[in-house]
Amino acid sequence: MKGVREVTLNNPCKRNVLSKEMVASLHESLNDDEGLRVVVLKAKGKVFSAGHDLKELLSPDREQVLLSTSHLMLRLRDLSVPVVVQVCGPVVAAGLQLMASCDIVIASHCSTFSTPGANVGVFCSTPGVALVRNTPIKTAAYMLFTGMSISADEALRVGLISLSAAKEDLDTVTEEVLDSICSKSKSVVSLGKKFFYDQESMRDLGEAYAKGCQVMSKNLEHSDAHEGIRAFSSKTKPQWTHESWKD
Amino acid sequence: MKGVREVTLNNPCKRNVLSKEMVASLHESLNDDEGLRVVVLKAKGKVFSAGHDLKELLSPDREQVLLSTSHLMLRLRDLSVPVVVQVCGPVVAAGLQLMASCDIVIASHCSTFSTPGANVGVFCSTPGVALVRNTPIKTAAYMLFTGMSISADEALRVGLISLSAAKEDLDTVTEEVLDSICSKSKSVVSLGKKFFYDQESMRDLGEAYAKGCQVMSKNLEHSDAHEGIRAFSSKTKPQWTHESWKD
Amino acid sequence: MKGVREVTLNNPCKRNVLSKEMVASLHESLNDDEGLRVVVLKAKGKVFSAGHDLKELLSPDREQVLLSTSHLMLRLRDLSVPVVVQVCGPVVAAGLQLMASCDIVIASHCSTFSTPGANVGVFCSTPGVALVRNTPIKTAAYMLFTGMSISADEALRVGLISLSAAKEDLDTVTEEVLDSICSKSKSVVSLGKKFFYDQESMRDLGEAYAKGCQVMSKNLEHSDAHEGIRAFSSKTKPQWTHESWKD
Repeated sequence: MKGVREVTLNNPCKRNVLSKEMVASLHESLNDDEGLRVVVLKAKGKVFSAGHDLKELLSPDREQVLLSTSHLMLRLRDLSVPVVVQVCGPVVAAGLQLMASCDIVIASHCSTFSTPGANVGVFCSTPGVALVRNTPIKTAAYMLFTGMSISADEALRVGLISLSAAKEDLDTVTEEVLDSICSKSKSVVSLGKKFFYDQESMRDLGEAYAKGCQVMSKNLEHSDAHEGIRAFSSKTKPQWTHESWKD
Repeated sequence: MKGVREVTLNNPCKRNVLSKEMVASLHESLNDDEGLRVVVLKAKGKVFSAGHDLKELLSPDREQVLLSTSHLMLRLRDLSVPVVVQVCGPVVAAGLQLMASCDIVIASHCSTFSTPGANVGVFCSTPGVALVRNTPIKTAAYMLFTGMSISADEALRVGLISLSAAKEDLDTVTEEVLDSICSKSKSVVSLGKKFFYDQESMRDLGEAYAKGCQVMSKNLEHSDAHEGIRAFSSKTKPQWTHESWKD
Repeated sequence: MKGVREVTLNNPCKRNVLSKEMVASLHESLNDDEGLRVVVLKAKGKVFSAGHDLKELLSPDREQVLLSTSHLMLRLRDLSVPVVVQVCGPVVAAGLQLMASCDIVIASHCSTFSTPGANVGVFCSTPGVALVRNTPIKTAAYMLFTGMSISADEALRVGLISLSAAKEDLDTVTEEVLDSICSKSKSVVSLGKKFFYDQESMRDLGEAYAKGCQVMSKNLEHSDAHEGIRAFSSKTKPQWTHESWKD
């Protein structure tokens, strides 16, 4: 699909561990370009990702491994286009952190989700950062303290995933989502994404609304807003410019 | 019902758009008076609200339109009595913002919820402020980036609504809620509402509890607390004074 | 089970009210010791807890009653081992606050949850602090303003409880959870618990990850991390030292 960049975790023999190499390759794949509208992250093989490479966690540069993984999570949030992740199979530890750091999560019914680090003496502290921002505290604590996994049904119930689908429908459901994003103005979506995460962390409601009004006003000055409203009124298809924002 | 003020979105031909006129009329309807115990917001016609009037969003005073809508949301939170909203049908964009800014949401099974602004080139940035405070991030991002709607069942699952009911039971369920609020002391409920939103935005748990203890102590000095506990002990109906707080 | 301390609310005739005496006894039971791995809180009788003793709330030292109850909630969070609570029956007002302040909540299907203080003229302001941090705002507001109770099914849906089970399976499910915690290194779990609640209240994602990387690095320096990874690689059972952290 035009505008879609597919990024694949492609080390199924090693259960797609987030090795230094894998993280570096993901960093590289997340550069923006003019034609890009959305990134979709998938995984080859039966396991979405088993998380960190345990051997690397014992190596002298482990702090660097952890930091570059965290930077990857922030990069996903800061990328100007939405990142959709398609999940099928076990999602484990830092693999769950990666998944939960994408904007939209679509998982097959057979997926499972866990943060079992404490079982091997390494508490999933950084995965927990992503987890507790995407599920109720009581679920996050249960997962982190016991290491037990939850099913896709449970993940949907607690809000950790956006959508679930049968394995055979996963591609169709994902394509609908990608298609809906590609049909929009890149400029409008990127402004919206940036403010979404900005306001989400504002505690003061009045402040969030004040900034929100400014952002909406800026949005309304863009030619794509005028085009969108015109097209809606005349029941035609909008022709976006996708023109970049001048800061 | 005594103590209940019913406020109606009454422009069904225009899908109850939140025009300047509509927002001004809602502002007016939200004044407090001594006898008021609860406000219930309903909508005439098949659509709860389609959100902003797109034409007004292109007009020169669009920033004013956005600001007065945001002020309305803050007003709902700051009103001394709870606001219950009854929803039946599509709830769209700023219409969803309005709904999610009420205290208790009761929706019929046939209601749908969406923030499709980006489809017309205007990202639902201010509706997103209310949305992400009332649903998991993964649901909010899905709704904002795709523009797709969710059902009442899904809205209940993600916590966007308090209760759902069959269309024919909607009034009965709503009346039970209104009745339960009206049976309480206005003074006690207003103190409770104010602290509820104050503490909700406090990050430090110790601070929230310290303030909470002060508020509970203040509550316990009110004659309605004494009357309530006396009535409970003697299994009689409490006779509230509803006496105002002296600041 | 070795490492498990069972603490019981044992005043069923008075519906396990959180009297001064009960709160003091809970405080005492929450001291740490070397062999402790997890605390499990249970209740005798049909009611988990009815909340505060209303008579004490009218007494001159009511502020002290409220403060020591709040301190108990903070103590549960600050205890170095996880606290699991097993619930069967009504959980009311400050009883709900106590339950929601434990790390993992396991409830039987017949449990009910309510914050009905406003019915007796005393708004559940401090219970609301725990409630709104563990459920969507629309559910919390509904419970606080109406005083109505929700079922275990609803509590699971909104995230207020971690797991639900049939009454006859409650002990088995609880033991699985306790067992999974006891099989881990105390040092690793205590470091993880502390950071979990620290990071949960950080608004800035970058800050949470930066601190998270430090905590993970510290964790990886502990001999139990090395032992856990070694045991995992060699498919043997890890032999933890549980050695304390040197600050």
